[in-house]
Amino acid sequence: MALNKIINLMKEQDIDIVFLNDPKNVFYVSSYMSDPHERILAAVLFRDEKPLLFVPALEEGDARKTAKEFDVFSYMDTQNPWDVLAAKIKERKTALSDWSIEKDFLTVERMEALRVRFPAATFQHNISAALQEMRLIKDEQELAFMKQAGFWADEAIKIGAKTLKEGITEMEVVAEIEYQLKKRGVSEMSFATMVLFGENAASPHGIPGDTKLKKNQFVLFDLGTMHAGYASDVTRTLFFGDKPSAHQKQIYDLVLAAHDQAMAAVQPGIKASELDAVARTIIADAGYGSYFNHRLGHGLGQGVHEYPSIMEGNEMNLNVGMCFSIEPGIYIEGDVGVRIEDCGFVNANGFESFTHTPTDIGAYSNLIG
Amino acid sequence: MALNKIINLMKEQDIDIVFLNDPKNVFYVSSYMSDPHERILAAVLFRDEKPLLFVPALEEGDARKTAKEFDVFSYMDTQNPWDVLAAKIKERKTALSDWSIEKDFLTVERMEALRVRFPAATFQHNISAALQEMRLIKDEQELAFMKQAGFWADEAIKIGAKTLKEGITEMEVVAEIEYQLKKRGVSEMSFATMVLFGENAASPHGIPGDTKLKKNQFVLFDLGTMHAGYASDVTRTLFFGDKPSAHQKQIYDLVLAAHDQAMAAVQPGIKASELDAVARTIIADAGYGSYFNHRLGHGLGQGVHEYPSIMEGNEMNLNVGMCFSIEPGIYIEGDVGVRIEDCGFVNANGFESFTHTPTDIGAYSNLIG
Repeated sequence: MALNKIINLMKEQDIDIVFLNDPKNVFYVSSYMSDPHERILAAVLFRDEKPLLFVPALEEGDARKTAKEFDVFSYMDTQNPWDVLAAKIKERKTALSDWSIEKDFLTVERMEALRVRFPAATFQHNISAALQEMRLIKDEQELAFMKQAGFWADEAIKIGAKTLKEGITEMEVVAEIEYQLKKRGVSEMSFATMVLFGENAASPHGIPGDTKLKKNQFVLFDLGTMHAGYASDVTRTLFFGDKPSAHQKQIYDLVLAAHDQAMAAVQPGIKASELDAVARTIIADAGYGSYFNHRLGHGLGQGVHEYPSIMEGNEMNLNVGMCFSIEPGIYIEGDVGVRIEDCGFVNANGFESFTHTPTDIGAYSNLIG
Repeated sequence: MALNKIINLMKEQDIDIVFLNDPKNVFYVSSYMSDPHERILAAVLFRDEKPLLFVPALEEGDARKTAKEFDVFSYMDTQNPWDVLAAKIKERKTALSDWSIEKDFLTVERMEALRVRFPAATFQHNISAALQEMRLIKDEQELAFMKQAGFWADEAIKIGAKTLKEGITEMEVVAEIEYQLKKRGVSEMSFATMVLFGENAASPHGIPGDTKLKKNQFVLFDLGTMHAGYASDVTRTLFFGDKPSAHQKQIYDLVLAAHDQAMAAVQPGIKASELDAVARTIIADAGYGSYFNHRLGHGLGQGVHEYPSIMEGNEMNLNVGMCFSIEPGIYIEGDVGVRIEDCGFVNANGFESFTHTPTDIGAYSNLIG
């Protein structure tokens, strides 16, 4: 369990107190999920005392129901939250000299607010890396949530495919996908849904607009959904028309080969950089290396930008339970953009995908129009 | 102009370098808007040198087109961004002893990354408050964007009203609103659209679900849209049915009176706490004080949680050009929830609203069902 893992680490490393205020980490240790905006949400862990969960007053009821292993307390908007928090921590009466903080999330202002109230404490230890590492390996429950998120991402592509017809705009397709998902109870996308037609897809970070769909264009879908706090992410480039040109087919097949061979190359222990190289070599050998101008993939979990990063220079070993995307692409400005992406996790035998939309160039031609 | 204001402040306060990495502040000084996720986006300002804009490689082209007053440079994912950034800053050859940072945004990790590379520098000065203060007062262009965002929020309520019929679920109404907006080109909401039926609205932070609409219930809409980087926010509680009960009407009229009188009380120089008290007194005098359990309003601009906070204890004077919401509510668990909210700005004469949806209890009865 996440909480026990951290408390063991505190004992090993003589940490007196762990202060978490990244909502994703608070959720990870307490099961309580909330976006406090500019307010303070914090989980405070001790070596030998019951942990504290500190929430805005409006959330106290919900937090109590969820975070059963925590003492939940709250503050009103009219109170100084740091004073309330410091008083509660001091009630615990533990020696509070060595704190560990989330250096990748805690702002300088918040650290100073703590420092003023605990002048004898040190804030040297960084819990971020340990938490990232714990969160890297997903357990069965987390994988089940991510599979469900993947299921909805696949459904979203199907919905999108059914929507395609000459003259429809990118934004209309986005609207239809999210509308149909919401009606089926899926209310949160994991990022802004991307639908790009033809050469618009040549920008990896393109934004859907009022471009109208024409015959014999590719349609790039890049989207994901949230399920129980976990994200999915899938990209498909469907062909809309009668028959792709030789050029379109060549680009597509190359990206597909890079995607398939990278997926096949996953095994426990492979380095992130090695996996990136598998896909990159295929595209580069065909002369399109400079048109694949981003990393092969990114980790995902509670969000779509977690570790591990699948890229050149990352020598991390990819181990069982790690979740990431594999998404090679070729982008030729003014011409074409193709990307094929699945997200999944490392199991004992290789890569198991959360998403299962078919990848052949004619996929869903039966659904389209 | 934002950039000049900050440079003047640097001269006054002997600041050598201002380091901004909050995307909202980067946008404010450079006009370049981007969400870099975990990557580094930074604007670096000097007293007597051209400012730098530092972006991920994929964004370099877009940034150059937009941030015309900046030298734009970028880094690849395979580079250490802090090394690239430090080298570029050192090329400027200015005395870089006194830095100013965004203490409310910069993480401890990022400050340490700077400190390692500039060991002789101090990072004591906090630019956050000055930026918040500058951003507090919106100029004509910003107000024009916010009026347009308000227009779309009003349209969204109309769409929602037309959707209402017995048996429809909250989430279906949300889906319909966002679908119709997207088809009209409005792709980004300023926060998760809230539609709550009857007693569900008694939770100020309620989440739309599959509750079905029944006759003679209130329907609470709380939503907003983004336009050109600026947010709107509006709440209406429409009555769905033939005739509200005496109890429903009493609660509604009380909230409306608090809303109207607070709006009428705005004048340049009034304190935020005084404005809060105008609405709160009306509700408290009627015996419902404990059911109005949040602040009267919040600032808005590039987001819906900016300054000024309209609440007890905030002695800030509300001056011309400041933008905020006025949103009293009464929430009785298991019974009813009513909130009426407009967002607008202080002008020479009082409050000018960005949103104009009618507020009488029968509003939009002609549109409904």
